[in-house]
Amino acid sequence: MITTDILIIGAGPTGLFAVFEAGLLQLKCHIIDALPQPGGQCAEIYPKKPIYDIPGFPEVLAGELVDNLMEQIKPFQPGFTLGERAETIEKQEDGSFVVTTNKGTQHKAPIVAIAGGLGSFEPRKPQLPNLSDYEDKGIVYMIKEPEVFRDRRVLIAGGGDSALDWSIFLADVASEVTLVHRRNEFRGALDSVEKVQQLKNQKKINLITPAEVRSLEGAEKLERVVIEKTDSGEKIDLEVDDFIPLFGLSPKLGPIADWGLEIEKNAIKVDNTLDYQTNIPGIYAIGDVNTYPGKLKLILCGFHEATLMCQSAYQRIHPDKKYVMKYTTVGGVTGFDGSKKEAPKAVVKAIE
Amino acid sequence: MITTDILIIGAGPTGLFAVFEAGLLQLKCHIIDALPQPGGQCAEIYPKKPIYDIPGFPEVLAGELVDNLMEQIKPFQPGFTLGERAETIEKQEDGSFVVTTNKGTQHKAPIVAIAGGLGSFEPRKPQLPNLSDYEDKGIVYMIKEPEVFRDRRVLIAGGGDSALDWSIFLADVASEVTLVHRRNEFRGALDSVEKVQQLKNQKKINLITPAEVRSLEGAEKLERVVIEKTDSGEKIDLEVDDFIPLFGLSPKLGPIADWGLEIEKNAIKVDNTLDYQTNIPGIYAIGDVNTYPGKLKLILCGFHEATLMCQSAYQRIHPDKKYVMKYTTVGGVTGFDGSKKEAPKAVVKAIE
Ligand SMILES: Cc1cc2nc3c(=O)[nH]c(=O)nc-3n(C[C@H](O)[C@H](O)[C@H](O)COP(=O)(O)OP(=O)(O)OC[C@H]3O[C@@H](n4cnc5c(N)ncnc54)[C@H](O)[C@@H]3O)c2cc1C
Ligand SMILES: Cc1cc2nc3c(=O)[nH]c(=O)nc-3n(C[C@H](O)[C@H](O)[C@H](O)COP(=O)(O)OP(=O)(O)OC[C@H]3O[C@@H](n4cnc5c(N)ncnc54)[C@H](O)[C@@H]3O)c2cc1C
Repeated sequence: MITTDILIIGAGPTGLFAVFEAGLLQLKCHIIDALPQPGGQCAEIYPKKPIYDIPGFPEVLAGELVDNLMEQIKPFQPGFTLGERAETIEKQEDGSFVVTTNKGTQHKAPIVAIAGGLGSFEPRKPQLPNLSDYEDKGIVYMIKEPEVFRDRRVLIAGGGDSALDWSIFLADVASEVTLVHRRNEFRGALDSVEKVQQLKNQKKINLITPAEVRSLEGAEKLERVVIEKTDSGEKIDLEVDDFIPLFGLSPKLGPIADWGLEIEKNAIKVDNTLDYQTNIPGIYAIGDVNTYPGKLKLILCGFHEATLMCQSAYQRIHPDKKYVMKYTTVGGVTGFDGSKKEAPKAVVKAIE
Repeated sequence: MITTDILIIGAGPTGLFAVFEAGLLQLKCHIIDALPQPGGQCAEIYPKKPIYDIPGFPEVLAGELVDNLMEQIKPFQPGFTLGERAETIEKQEDGSFVVTTNKGTQHKAPIVAIAGGLGSFEPRKPQLPNLSDYEDKGIVYMIKEPEVFRDRRVLIAGGGDSALDWSIFLADVASEVTLVHRRNEFRGALDSVEKVQQLKNQKKINLITPAEVRSLEGAEKLERVVIEKTDSGEKIDLEVDDFIPLFGLSPKLGPIADWGLEIEKNAIKVDNTLDYQTNIPGIYAIGDVNTYPGKLKLILCGFHEATLMCQSAYQRIHPDKKYVMKYTTVGGVTGFDGSKKEAPKAVVKAIE
């Protein structure tokens, strides 16, 4: 059982920044995310695209923003349960909550902050009859650790940035990379498309288009697929170790919708007059996942909501303490790792 | 008469960022500030100190943050009335407001956003009987344009960062710089104290401590001051062109307190359930200057408040239009200066 002060569901920019604000209050955080990496939409959907409305950044790539946030929260050593979906919540006798993931990992905390964005990112799956037989036995929807594909025969399907970028990356890792797409045209960053063209010419990527995977075969695990060229009807038998369909991820509010929280327009209603708490005391909802009058689904709003939420969480955890806010410039940042950042102090010195 | 869509009072981080959010909605802004430069507390009180809790910046100097915000809002070409205090407000028949400064400059807008922080920064003045006779006739409390002191004999009084930094700066500009302080010890950044020591040794700064200015003399304008060395009682007559007392600025809510707005704890009460509007429709208060349950006087909160305020202002100005928010990443940033920032578009391209 993982225990912490604030259990955060969702490692998007809102959840990440909540770790920082909690840390300033000496509260520890643990984050669960269905994705294999932190960053939420910024990391998953548009890491290489610029954002122009983060205050103080005339321009910042979404991926850079995530890197910066990870750097900013480092002193507060958050725990991460990545690649798992928060599935159930149970209130304990002592008032705390236990949240269990789809893989059975259990987390206990007095405060739960749902920063789930548009929902848990779930892969769009190809329509193949025996697909579920091979999930985690050769079929992978999200790449957590690319090294597991070293010297293996990998089949990627898809026509967007993920399919392009992972084909490029794995061309150097896997023994064989085949890329299948149902059209001849790919949709992505120009340099990615050009790079795949180049790797195809160098025979480092085996490209089959327009084509679709038609069947999966194998005894204990995936061994072989049949690919159909949709222009000629030709069938290609391909021996593979791994099949990675990259048809995009779509967010689903999913299990959280059944936690007894008030839901409106597919989002969680919160009290914006005070602290972004939900109808269940001790459970907060911040960032894209919440709704209230005038709500804007913007990153900078999530930052504010996370900050006010942490103040309220502090009061719930320490009802008897009075917290006096100190500016970071004045009080510095004292990490749980023993680190200390601090403004240089003014000197008082005579001039002779 | 200066006319604009949103008249912002206060060029601190909150007021500056409001220009950006308004610009995204194609609304023009004009800012009034009592200080000669934009940046509010960040620029005036601690420009060289690091802030650690701006989201996405593990560390940023307060002055850098202001520079970044100025860069970010550049496409939206805000107007500035600097070095003037907003004094009175009058509601017009057409529902708009006219705000007049202490120097008589008039501004008209349908929306007023008060981003006045802790109040208008007003100089702490020395206790000298005929002080007001020489204000703007040799006595200057805030330096707007250092070039006006070129080849002049300047007297600075004070013992903090401002006194140190302006003495250093003007040592290269003025023909003569005298620095008077009532103690021998200065309080400031170590390198500033050391630099002044060095300039004193090089006879580029004439240092008189412990000492105080005792009287001001001159017919039409300031010509001479008498300085008393407080240890020996010795009197020094000094011919000067300019006397710059730098005893710090203290913020005063001042005239805004008489505008008929609901005030609580020296701050303006706003509706945090929706849009940070005050009790007077069309007048908003954002950033440090406002108060509501759970209010935190933090920069990141001001950014959020400015953003929601602009949405509401848009609806007031265009009651018949429905604004559909577009992410900056998707819609880009179109400046009033004809500039356009935009994410590189994805291509759709066949691989052969
Ligand atoms: C193309 C695009 C461009 C954008 N441009 C801008 C812009 O210019 N400016 C701007 O401010 N915003 C922009 N946005 C919106 C911005 O990305 C979101 O506002 C922001 O990501 C919300 O952050 P969040 O942390 O609240 O949620 P998210 O980033 O959505 O992160 C939520 C995370 O929670 C996880 N999660 C949810 N439920 C569960 C569960 N049950 N178990 C485990 N994990 C779960 C998800 O997997 C996800 O990783 C853009 C969005 C897109 C798609
Ligand atoms: C030493 C110090 C350290 C700090 N550290 C941090 C930190 O680490 N993190 C953080 O988030 N915050 C910190 N703060 C607080 C932060 O600076 C404020 O929250 C922020 O400046 C508020 O921004 P604002 O735009 O609302 O107001 P301000 O920055 O106060 O700007 C308001 C402006 O309005 C002007 N004004 C007011 N009334 C009038 C009028 N009638 N006419 C004309 N002009 C007027 C003033 O002159 C001023 O320039 C710190 C503050 C100080 C002093």
